[in-house]
Amino acid sequence: MSEALVPGQTIGILGGGQLGRMLAMAAARLGLHVHIYEPGVEPPAGEVARCTFTASYDDAVALEDFARSVDVVTYEFENVPAAALDRIEALVPFRPNRRALAVSQDRLDEKAFLTGLGLTTAPYAAVDDAGSLAKALSAMGMPAILKTRQLGYDGKGQARIDAPGDAGAALDAMGGAPAILEGFVHFEREISVIAARGADGRVMAFEPGENRHEDGILRTTRVPAAIGGATRLDAVTLAGRILNGLDYIGVTVGGLVVNEIAPRVHNSGHWTEAGCVVDQFEQHIRAVAGWPLAEPLRHSDVEMENLIGCDMDRVPAIAAEEGARLQLYGKAETRAGRKMGHVTRVSGLARRR
Amino acid sequence: MSEALVPGQTIGILGGGQLGRMLAMAAARLGLHVHIYEPGVEPPAGEVARCTFTASYDDAVALEDFARSVDVVTYEFENVPAAALDRIEALVPFRPNRRALAVSQDRLDEKAFLTGLGLTTAPYAAVDDAGSLAKALSAMGMPAILKTRQLGYDGKGQARIDAPGDAGAALDAMGGAPAILEGFVHFEREISVIAARGADGRVMAFEPGENRHEDGILRTTRVPAAIGGATRLDAVTLAGRILNGLDYIGVTVGGLVVNEIAPRVHNSGHWTEAGCVVDQFEQHIRAVAGWPLAEPLRHSDVEMENLIGCDMDRVPAIAAEEGARLQLYGKAETRAGRKMGHVTRVSGLARRR
Repeated sequence: MSEALVPGQTIGILGGGQLGRMLAMAAARLGLHVHIYEPGVEPPAGEVARCTFTASYDDAVALEDFARSVDVVTYEFENVPAAALDRIEALVPFRPNRRALAVSQDRLDEKAFLTGLGLTTAPYAAVDDAGSLAKALSAMGMPAILKTRQLGYDGKGQARIDAPGDAGAALDAMGGAPAILEGFVHFEREISVIAARGADGRVMAFEPGENRHEDGILRTTRVPAAIGGATRLDAVTLAGRILNGLDYIGVTVGGLVVNEIAPRVHNSGHWTEAGCVVDQFEQHIRAVAGWPLAEPLRHSDVEMENLIGCDMDRVPAIAAEEGARLQLYGKAETRAGRKMGHVTRVSGLARRR
Repeated sequence: MSEALVPGQTIGILGGGQLGRMLAMAAARLGLHVHIYEPGVEPPAGEVARCTFTASYDDAVALEDFARSVDVVTYEFENVPAAALDRIEALVPFRPNRRALAVSQDRLDEKAFLTGLGLTTAPYAAVDDAGSLAKALSAMGMPAILKTRQLGYDGKGQARIDAPGDAGAALDAMGGAPAILEGFVHFEREISVIAARGADGRVMAFEPGENRHEDGILRTTRVPAAIGGATRLDAVTLAGRILNGLDYIGVTVGGLVVNEIAPRVHNSGHWTEAGCVVDQFEQHIRAVAGWPLAEPLRHSDVEMENLIGCDMDRVPAIAAEEGARLQLYGKAETRAGRKMGHVTRVSGLARRR
């Protein structure tokens, strides 16, 4: 697919959660159809897409039907099984590419890729057993954090080690999966850079957002971040190096001591929908569709707050707030810890009529 | 329905065109489901709604199934047959109310309603036959314009009369339908006020936009309009009087010599999606759902341009423009004179990264 998609063509999205949902609405704005592939029934994204394939990632027939029904495939999460991607890629182009996905699927590969580009990461070491864990702990010191190499998110699949006596329980918590030990980084703040690389190789980055977490889950992102111009420039330049290093097409996210890269739209970029002319979702769709990327122009100062679990009880009050823009995900069931929506608050606007 | 809808409840929309499509996406952002009712197959709105009823407006069974499947019904166009509305309203609340719809469906009733509120309109007279037309022409002078009382839009169902000899042909063009003769108003500019009235009776108005037409079709809307503060205030006050006069719930549009009112979201309000925190579509959904209306905060100067027919050929160039936001309607076929999408251009933004 060297040609750009034209209105009326179709993008396939693997995953039907809120990211797929917001991608689908962005695609609709560009006149592109969307087909969702998602094992769970009635996914949030299905409601705003032309059609939904409800099937597991090991259903070869469904995967191939899906692939044949679309012009290009992208994804809302990076843990799609490789065998499923093989089937899809045999039939239709896949963006961002497999390398970006493979690197981000494995924390050890990710760290190796980043340090290979000359970027700074937390100290890390591969851990496969008690022996390699003991060796890594003595080299790195404590506290440190043991993580599964694959399939972790929002603080899951992680165990903190403060003293040698924690090591055994931490290793047990990995359930025999290959792991990585990471040293603690004493950081001043966490920022995210949402950057995209177009099919023509051009990179566009939104301004860095400043994140605040609670209980391992992103709580707010604020733009502008409280960082100087030099840091801002460094962050954006660094994001560009990562994208070029991956020969990447799509939207991704990074930091200065680079913590993680996500080869997709990201929660820390939701502020763009209220603060920018074109948001991260449309930017990703533009990249995937081979369209020119948009200049990441920002018109407002914004704070994005995630609505998690019973935060939904506050929706009526938030709806009455001046300058608040809601984005609810249409999930049928509200559960503790579940991301149900977000609100972006725009500040500093005069009331003009 | 005195209670507000909660996320997970469903809004029914009569009409599946681009207005329904943008309403459906706004409803999704608020966690509300949308069912579309539309006689035409594969309507633009159906793609971003949970389900679509494809049936005519005289299909009693389909209308009742539709009504039973939703919690409130609204509409994207005002020419829905009254009998269909009767069936729906017997089962489920309908917003904005029937009076607003009835007044806007008939140009004579609309003018009578507006002058009854003490507002200025073009001179007008009812025309039912050659006799009443001759009498109206001699009272009003020429040029004047003869319009069907019902079912006209975008310049259709209209005939201009410059000299007495045009009268016969103009009357024939009405096809025997009841008509209204309107005098010409020599105006400086046309402005639109998009205003909404919530279930609590509170009125919110966006800033007036300035419209430019070509061939009877809206070409661009620009905000801010080139009008002074006093005119701006007058326009907004006047829109409030119209809404209160109708005991109206929803979004509507007006002017200073009041040309027309539309009891729905309107093409001249599309600029709000690129210029405001909350756009006209969400404002309408909020009103229909019984939610508090949003403050109509504007963050940017905007010009909206309609993309009509082969304007679609310019989409790749527009996609590469800085500060341009596309909204394409997903219509399968591009036809001359057909509204295919629009672009909103935001100006005066610094490039910040």
